[in-house]
Amino acid sequence: MTVEKGRVDSGKLTNFTVEILRKVGVNEEEAKITAKMLVDCDLRGIDSHGVNHLKNYIKGIQNGLINPNPKTEISSLSPSTAIMEANRGLGFIVGHRAMMEAIRRANEVGAGFVAVRNNTHPGGAFSYSMLALEHDMIGIAMIQTGTLMEVMPPGSKVRAVGTNPLSVAIPSGEKPAFVLDMATSVVSYGKLQLAQMKGTTMPEGWVVDLEGKPVTDPDKVSPDKVALVPLGVTPLLGSYKGFGLAVLVDILCGVLSGGKAALLMTDEGHGVHDPAHSFFGAIRVDGFLPIDKFKKSMDEMIEAYETLPTIPGVEKVYIAGGHEAKVEKERRANGIPLLPKMIRELEELSKELGVKYDL
Amino acid sequence: MTVEKGRVDSGKLTNFTVEILRKVGVNEEEAKITAKMLVDCDLRGIDSHGVNHLKNYIKGIQNGLINPNPKTEISSLSPSTAIMEANRGLGFIVGHRAMMEAIRRANEVGAGFVAVRNNTHPGGAFSYSMLALEHDMIGIAMIQTGTLMEVMPPGSKVRAVGTNPLSVAIPSGEKPAFVLDMATSVVSYGKLQLAQMKGTTMPEGWVVDLEGKPVTDPDKVSPDKVALVPLGVTPLLGSYKGFGLAVLVDILCGVLSGGKAALLMTDEGHGVHDPAHSFFGAIRVDGFLPIDKFKKSMDEMIEAYETLPTIPGVEKVYIAGGHEAKVEKERRANGIPLLPKMIRELEELSKELGVKYDL
Repeated sequence: MTVEKGRVDSGKLTNFTVEILRKVGVNEEEAKITAKMLVDCDLRGIDSHGVNHLKNYIKGIQNGLINPNPKTEISSLSPSTAIMEANRGLGFIVGHRAMMEAIRRANEVGAGFVAVRNNTHPGGAFSYSMLALEHDMIGIAMIQTGTLMEVMPPGSKVRAVGTNPLSVAIPSGEKPAFVLDMATSVVSYGKLQLAQMKGTTMPEGWVVDLEGKPVTDPDKVSPDKVALVPLGVTPLLGSYKGFGLAVLVDILCGVLSGGKAALLMTDEGHGVHDPAHSFFGAIRVDGFLPIDKFKKSMDEMIEAYETLPTIPGVEKVYIAGGHEAKVEKERRANGIPLLPKMIRELEELSKELGVKYDL
Repeated sequence: MTVEKGRVDSGKLTNFTVEILRKVGVNEEEAKITAKMLVDCDLRGIDSHGVNHLKNYIKGIQNGLINPNPKTEISSLSPSTAIMEANRGLGFIVGHRAMMEAIRRANEVGAGFVAVRNNTHPGGAFSYSMLALEHDMIGIAMIQTGTLMEVMPPGSKVRAVGTNPLSVAIPSGEKPAFVLDMATSVVSYGKLQLAQMKGTTMPEGWVVDLEGKPVTDPDKVSPDKVALVPLGVTPLLGSYKGFGLAVLVDILCGVLSGGKAALLMTDEGHGVHDPAHSFFGAIRVDGFLPIDKFKKSMDEMIEAYETLPTIPGVEKVYIAGGHEAKVEKERRANGIPLLPKMIRELEELSKELGVKYDL
């Protein structure tokens, strides 16, 4: 394997991230789990959720807002359902524990669900749904984005709900798995930050001001002046559906866990380190069908989509996760392109925490 | 109760529908279940899925494409999961049986899921998800809209996936329940038919021609010349998310049930009477939290949304299902407004089948 110039080897980046996490008190096993999840975001092209956030997580731990060694507690009132109290644990550790608990329960009775209270931001939702794949299960993950509440419900003139991402992963055979991973808003806040960084105009439909008028200048993006828009953009084009999905995530994560709907969080205000109540689930495919039959049928479906006639400029119709799998293959071979700003941040972290930087 | 002029009493309409269904061989209990579901659509303002389709279902039964007395068969490989073979049963009967099976399993182990193969069109997805509410459960329903395949995936130039609706219902206390019920496309085909009937221009974003150009003239809507658009409208505004949700429904209904993804159905071609593989689920709320605590927390959340400041012309921000509950209350009191065309159809059915018409 040769890493291209200006790129970083994913294995080295993972090891570096493990060392950084070890320095702030994360145990070795869970540092490895966390580092893999962060780097997997970068590998799959979800750059907005990868190591570019490492500094934030480290800061959160240093400030005492994120617990690097949480004592999570499970309470359960039925074989397939449970609540986890996360004690503001590092989101990756908590999410991994919760998802493994859901998988364990699915192994026993066919399905398992764990609603998590007082989690902190666990990165990309797909990191958890995809854990189910190697167990031949359907994986589900939802994340309530706490008091950030960046999205304006249709008909209102305030921000009142999070971008509340959801992910569902479904196993396949030879073809890349189905991995739906979506904010329930048109775009996530990360895409605005990217537009700001690059200085590019944003398309109409991403952001509005508090009177509902489109904002396209990324320099006008400041949290108190603009809002994100639910998937669908306008009521006429279905924005109440995006809003409905956002509230669904709010309920399953915030209410069902014994936490709170985002709109009712008044006493927490740590921004990116707000509680991120969350929800994880696993369902056994072979509770319905023999797994081989199912995987064959999935591959046939994916092949049928991939061979649809396309418009000029589009190579093929990917189902969710197909494009990301392609990016992952390429980046695993050739390395991950990191922005110079990112590399400087990692170098600073290495100096601050005394971890050798040799990426 | 006084029914307004030009309106029809929901109780009378239900009884009439029961009698019609009895005449084509549906047993009394299941005729009542079916009639209630159809009229509930009209009561809640989902006019596109109510008694306006009664004639289609009756025709389907008369043509032998819909079985009014199906012998459905359950096979199960885990306590919380099952497949149902529906033998082309009337969709309402099948869906009701499948959802009750999911609820029974959730009662036992906390969650239950039934993937249904060879169902026929079961009306509105919310009719099934809402069955879970009186059991204090979260209800889930998804419907694969068979070979109709009205929606064009982003990047392709053919119709390749259905409008594939999904619904999730979640109990509340005093406030109306959360009932998300959405096509995964911008609009359902029913809205186009409504535009055609009224002769009104359609907004850009509902329909495109096979080159992807917007179509706004409802007279240009014909199945071989236009396509519906996934929720999100364009890739830049997230149409791959709507498409992803549509494929999710396709998989859970078509593949997991042992049926087929819509794209691979080649030998069926009955249009509205195509197989509608489907998926039903129920999850016990009290598997997570005491139900009273949960309902109180739901009511607080809903109250918080309903008291958000609104833009001019908007009375309040409803969560999903709130507006429909309001319409239901009004129509239950004052009657259901039926279009003259609808009333003529019902009169024709009454003559044809020898059922007294006294609505």
